[in-house]
Amino acid sequence: MKLPGGFAAAGVACGLKSRGGLDLGLLVSDRPATAAGVVTGNRVKAAPVLLTKRLLRTGSARGVVVNAGNANACTGRQGILDAQQMGAAAARAATTHRRQMLVASTGIIGVPMDMGVAVRGIAAAADGLSPGGLDDFADAILTTDTTRKVAAASLDGGASIVGVAKGAAMIAPEMATMLCFIATDAPVDRTVLTSSLTTAMPDSFNAISVDGCMSTNDCVLVLANGAAGGESITLEDARADAFAEALRGVCARLARAIVEDGEGATKVVTIRVDGAVNPKEAKRAASTVASSVLLRCALHGADPNWGRVLAALGTSGIPFDPNLIDVWIGGEQLCARSAPGPGDGGRARLALLEREVEVRVEMNRGGASATVLTNDLSAEYVRLNAEYTT
Amino acid sequence: MKLPGGFAAAGVACGLKSRGGLDLGLLVSDRPATAAGVVTGNRVKAAPVLLTKRLLRTGSARGVVVNAGNANACTGRQGILDAQQMGAAAARAATTHRRQMLVASTGIIGVPMDMGVAVRGIAAAADGLSPGGLDDFADAILTTDTTRKVAAASLDGGASIVGVAKGAAMIAPEMATMLCFIATDAPVDRTVLTSSLTTAMPDSFNAISVDGCMSTNDCVLVLANGAAGGESITLEDARADAFAEALRGVCARLARAIVEDGEGATKVVTIRVDGAVNPKEAKRAASTVASSVLLRCALHGADPNWGRVLAALGTSGIPFDPNLIDVWIGGEQLCARSAPGPGDGGRARLALLEREVEVRVEMNRGGASATVLTNDLSAEYVRLNAEYTT
Repeated sequence: MKLPGGFAAAGVACGLKSRGGLDLGLLVSDRPATAAGVVTGNRVKAAPVLLTKRLLRTGSARGVVVNAGNANACTGRQGILDAQQMGAAAARAATTHRRQMLVASTGIIGVPMDMGVAVRGIAAAADGLSPGGLDDFADAILTTDTTRKVAAASLDGGASIVGVAKGAAMIAPEMATMLCFIATDAPVDRTVLTSSLTTAMPDSFNAISVDGCMSTNDCVLVLANGAAGGESITLEDARADAFAEALRGVCARLARAIVEDGEGATKVVTIRVDGAVNPKEAKRAASTVASSVLLRCALHGADPNWGRVLAALGTSGIPFDPNLIDVWIGGEQLCARSAPGPGDGGRARLALLEREVEVRVEMNRGGASATVLTNDLSAEYVRLNAEYTT
Repeated sequence: MKLPGGFAAAGVACGLKSRGGLDLGLLVSDRPATAAGVVTGNRVKAAPVLLTKRLLRTGSARGVVVNAGNANACTGRQGILDAQQMGAAAARAATTHRRQMLVASTGIIGVPMDMGVAVRGIAAAADGLSPGGLDDFADAILTTDTTRKVAAASLDGGASIVGVAKGAAMIAPEMATMLCFIATDAPVDRTVLTSSLTTAMPDSFNAISVDGCMSTNDCVLVLANGAAGGESITLEDARADAFAEALRGVCARLARAIVEDGEGATKVVTIRVDGAVNPKEAKRAASTVASSVLLRCALHGADPNWGRVLAALGTSGIPFDPNLIDVWIGGEQLCARSAPGPGDGGRARLALLEREVEVRVEMNRGGASATVLTNDLSAEYVRLNAEYTT
């Protein structure tokens, strides 16, 4: 996959990941880029998240430096200084101002960064910057992910959007635990970039749940450097809609890739809720169902246990009529009006053996719908998370 | 264990549990008893829960009939009729009015009760009623539990309180998925019984969490028949406090027994939160931490991953200062002011190898505390819940 024009990237192995492998990435634009971002809603935010959030206020950046292996979260005042030092080192290497370099981290919480290692890694990454460095950059941000996550879209006029992400666990709605970096050479202005990202979030990164745990380090950052040339795209421009739609597609594909690669997951589960009073209620219902550990265990075992869907829904706080719920699993209506439905349980069970699974809930209250992607809960997830820091 | 005076119980194997074993219990008082109860906060309530909730309004009952193997939840209008028929059959067998017989069920959701089997079981249980039938009754309500759960307290004047419970999974704060039946021959009036139960709940059944999933079938029922004799205990009576305290003790022991026997659990985890602004906030913080799948995996692996405590706390919605949190795991202060603390990680790791584990959080906001009991999340939990209905 090629980076958009004017961007270069690199990924190096500097020693921050205890298991080895690429663990430091640098993405740099050769000219100032418009920047937008969204960061975790967790009250406990990692030092790089706090720094990046502040830097984003300028609406402009030249690049981002990111490491895996250490989240630089819950590291106190030193953590803030370390994040600043990472940004400064990367800015120096990219010959730009330190306030133009965004910083992100992922990995273990509560352990001070080894800054000697990080700064050497940044220098090495700067030396390796190249327009073909996307794959190394994408690999350098992974933790327990098993696959590289990249998505791209082409725009009229030769511009493109390329995004990379990491996920794996601590993925909850209203911010997945994940990092996502998107670069585009489309000449979009700040309002278009920000509004496009805002539009893309609800149906992508805020519509996935792996384990209901929200991280301290999440961020989605977008840089638009305009290297493709052409007139600046403003909100009034018809091209703004096309850009927003393309960005939404890239975000949705990366979000799905995160769920597909969820820790220990064997299935991608689409939870679709229809018939809610409004979209917010639909989303809340879908998220509550997606967060049910019991349901996700049942799906892992290919057990079409629709009772667990109702049990979860009943804890959502939504004042629905408990006698009016319909549930389909694997296309079979197993629950009609909150009682056993006409669907074939055997066929539903067969459908649950597939990699793609759908649970659909009809609330019979109104016309709003929402979809949340999650996956099944396996013994492997437990094993991974029991052993992660040991 | 002996039942209080005037009570008889029985448990029989009638065939409602697909795996066999005792699955129908009957508890009857030889005279009218004062009755109080608390049922699930889940919006989706099982048919027996709806029936029992209604019957409790009279404040009086002669007994309770309960089955395992089928929850009679999400079974529509027929489910209500079936619950009524169970109560009527049990009332007939105990020669009392049908409105005097409470009904409870646990087991699979969304499958109609086999009423032929249930009614034959009720007749058999009625034939077997005896003052020594407590253990069989306690066994008949178990599902994936591995141990019988009984607790008792003696009161001045020769009266006693005896309770039994079942738990295992779908255990969340603000009502565990569980059944609990308590009998006492103390001559307490309705206000004392109700207020004592209300007082006992927050620190017992509403302070435990196994998997954050709230069931459709929970109930805690208390019958007081006064068979021990003596003057009726009213709220003004000093003995009312002693009764409330004894009931609290019985509830707390049963609640702990449920957590100790949580599905797949290898540890009992006490989450204690201090320094909250008020008890409600403290409880919310403790519950949020206790519900973190990631933290519970870490504890299973004896990994003192305090960062996951902060990450969970940050999603609680409590407006705390993210720089002021202290965390102790296994008595070691691993986090001070939201950064690595002076405690010894190695010693914390050793402490986590024990069966009893404590995680303590100091929020440094106020003087309120709360404690929630939970357990670790093991691969065995996933296995049990992937295979439960198959």
